[in-house]
Amino acid sequence: MLPQPIRDYLLARREEHLAALKEFLSIPSLVNDAPGSAAAARQASDWLAGRLASLGLDSAVLETPGRPVVLALSRPIPGRPTLMIYGHYDVQPSEPLERWTSPPFRPQVRDGCVYARGACDDKGQLFAHLMAVEAWQRAGGGLPLNVKFFIEGQEEIGSPGMESFMADHKDELAADAVVISDSEFFADGVPSITYALRGLVLVELTVTGPAHDVHSGIHGGAVSNPVNVLAEMIAGLHDADGRVTIPGFYDDVLNLSDQERREWQALPFDPAAYAASLGVAELGGGERGLAALERRWSRPTLDCNGIIGGYTGPGGKTIIPSRASAKVSMRLVANQNPDKVIEGIASYVRQHQRPGTVAEFAVLSKSRPVLLDRHSFAMASAAAAMEEAFGRRPVMIRCGASVPVTEIFQRIFGMDAVLMGLGLPDDNPHAPNERFRLEHLWRGSEASAALMGNLSAEKVASRLA
Amino acid sequence: MLPQPIRDYLLARREEHLAALKEFLSIPSLVNDAPGSAAAARQASDWLAGRLASLGLDSAVLETPGRPVVLALSRPIPGRPTLMIYGHYDVQPSEPLERWTSPPFRPQVRDGCVYARGACDDKGQLFAHLMAVEAWQRAGGGLPLNVKFFIEGQEEIGSPGMESFMADHKDELAADAVVISDSEFFADGVPSITYALRGLVLVELTVTGPAHDVHSGIHGGAVSNPVNVLAEMIAGLHDADGRVTIPGFYDDVLNLSDQERREWQALPFDPAAYAASLGVAELGGGERGLAALERRWSRPTLDCNGIIGGYTGPGGKTIIPSRASAKVSMRLVANQNPDKVIEGIASYVRQHQRPGTVAEFAVLSKSRPVLLDRHSFAMASAAAAMEEAFGRRPVMIRCGASVPVTEIFQRIFGMDAVLMGLGLPDDNPHAPNERFRLEHLWRGSEASAALMGNLSAEKVASRLA
Repeated sequence: MLPQPIRDYLLARREEHLAALKEFLSIPSLVNDAPGSAAAARQASDWLAGRLASLGLDSAVLETPGRPVVLALSRPIPGRPTLMIYGHYDVQPSEPLERWTSPPFRPQVRDGCVYARGACDDKGQLFAHLMAVEAWQRAGGGLPLNVKFFIEGQEEIGSPGMESFMADHKDELAADAVVISDSEFFADGVPSITYALRGLVLVELTVTGPAHDVHSGIHGGAVSNPVNVLAEMIAGLHDADGRVTIPGFYDDVLNLSDQERREWQALPFDPAAYAASLGVAELGGGERGLAALERRWSRPTLDCNGIIGGYTGPGGKTIIPSRASAKVSMRLVANQNPDKVIEGIASYVRQHQRPGTVAEFAVLSKSRPVLLDRHSFAMASAAAAMEEAFGRRPVMIRCGASVPVTEIFQRIFGMDAVLMGLGLPDDNPHAPNERFRLEHLWRGSEASAALMGNLSAEKVASRLA
Repeated sequence: MLPQPIRDYLLARREEHLAALKEFLSIPSLVNDAPGSAAAARQASDWLAGRLASLGLDSAVLETPGRPVVLALSRPIPGRPTLMIYGHYDVQPSEPLERWTSPPFRPQVRDGCVYARGACDDKGQLFAHLMAVEAWQRAGGGLPLNVKFFIEGQEEIGSPGMESFMADHKDELAADAVVISDSEFFADGVPSITYALRGLVLVELTVTGPAHDVHSGIHGGAVSNPVNVLAEMIAGLHDADGRVTIPGFYDDVLNLSDQERREWQALPFDPAAYAASLGVAELGGGERGLAALERRWSRPTLDCNGIIGGYTGPGGKTIIPSRASAKVSMRLVANQNPDKVIEGIASYVRQHQRPGTVAEFAVLSKSRPVLLDRHSFAMASAAAAMEEAFGRRPVMIRCGASVPVTEIFQRIFGMDAVLMGLGLPDDNPHAPNERFRLEHLWRGSEASAALMGNLSAEKVASRLA
């Protein structure tokens, strides 16, 4: 049970905490090439390091080849377990700007929510943990366990280079468990803990044909067309049942357990409402005959993210294009290995060469899937904390997306990871009018504080002790 | 036989004619939106009308909704047949400019060729006919038949609105035969008459899915992907034998006669050299098991001219795109009907709807194929004229491209058409360093003059007499 003084402290400081969060949200810490974004990343890092220092943590802004990383360590308490709190200060681009009701970097409170780019993803969720540390320090007699913050600035572009950064800072980053709040409730009123994420392989397929675009009338019929060849390659990546045809693709896929399938069937999921939220008449994609949640969460999928080739301006131009390319992402599930999938792609591309064209592929990104232990002490501690804060036992869900560092914490550091998402499905991360419900900020900080309390009971078992 | 005074006249005036052609080639009569291109079209029209008037023709520049048309009629000679000469003064864009050895609108003579945009396509070929008229008028005792020039300025964009212009000017344009010099020899040293052109249907296929791009991780497997659906639609347009699967597509296709097949087999065609000229390792495309010339000339084909959808910038972006589209051109052969092909496409698109996406198509352009009578008097007259001028009996060939007005002359006016191409396959029309060989200008003007002489013998048969 969360000590009453901590609850009282958080309740009393709401106005002050909201003001601080709005300050943090005002920093346009984009991770793209927008003018001033590097300076804003520095400003956000400094803001975080300063605030963490004011809470009594030993804080530092560390340089990386990309955006700075903020590391902060609480004063060591021997014999107590160590909780790592991971978050990111970088935010998605704001475009299209005209669809925002209030400007993305001028936070505004409306309808019980704070609206700003990054409100939910991830500044608001991250800030809830800072509030919890503050409450323990100021009203709880000090932190009940060791806390480390690890906050990066490149999550939205796939955390490039983060694995080697983490390997280089293995000692500073060592912890018993890591909590990541960068996900969401399954539905409003349904607190959720995410125990699996999909991995990713992202490739670019390129087909080249004639040395330059040629006349489709004069040469049509005698020259292989790179766009047509690419379309055949993409179409061939799925069979009639919607299964991916890359050799060996399903070899290592873990089947869904009956228990999980039953749990998912019990979730309040309405396919028609979900389809409507995406603006489609009905659901589609994935493997035929499987439920939508199963397709999103426990099965690997393949999607074209983009395609381009030839003439794409107004009207027509009767050419056979010289070249066409497509970006194709595959989402992987436990226990698939990205490198093995990439070998399969190489074999697929070899098999689909056509006379007079050359098909090639390049790997743009890869990350491993992650399936967390649903029965770890950290997971149980988080579930109890969520129940205490939100008044309802969380459901255990998976997520189809990837958070690359999660798998790194698990694989390199052997940490128990907990994905304790505080957002809501309609918080619009990555979209205009991103928001974070204030009620989730308040209760989220209580959940974080409760998690710290619950985990501190594990002191005997600490692997770092 | 061409009267000797005409030969002598053309020989004596070469320098003067080349200077005049260079003047014509200096006018940047582009048909696009480039600054000054409308004024240049006017300048080219005026230049032509002035030159034709100086040859004793009744000339006029007629307005159209697009670029002006030049009409010129010789003084009527009752009882003589009428030859229409069609050409176009508009030229292709010059980009990429840096690949030109001399600037596109500053004609330069090198290696026995005049280099300029439009040198071959179509100013040089058209000018050969003006030279022939001049020679008859000044040295042949006057034209031996009635001549009409019909010169447009929008051929390079598919002659939009030309059918209705021609229908509105049916009387002025009436003629017994039309000669079009806007094509090329089969090979250097192989004079050629083209007796068939393919028609065209150009459509844009569009597939729309979610209301906006959505996260490929969170939603992948539950949402049909418009790029994947479009790729499947495009791939499905050909079967394993390379045949187009549009319902009814081949129903009306005229089979190639054994005689034509034998003739084509006798042509000096080297598939490896042709492939090398396009920069491909080997030929491909079209229907399996047919010879390359047959695939290009006598079989309908389907090619994607361009495709676009989703994220196409650097790196990756893991989305399921909201929309994807492709431009697809079909080349039709006699006796296919573009409208029937379009009905087949509508049926194909209906059959390929997928859950959660909407596939649509729009027709961007259409023109009918044309198969000319190889045994018409006009064709025989042109063959004899080419033989006389170039010293070798022309081969009869087809061309895979389209010249929309050809079919209109045939269908609306009932004219015998002759495609007497004077260019060479390496003249680079539509490409940098376009050129026209001076020897082809001199001999081309003789061929035109000889054609006029030969056709004048048909006086008794003139349909307009």
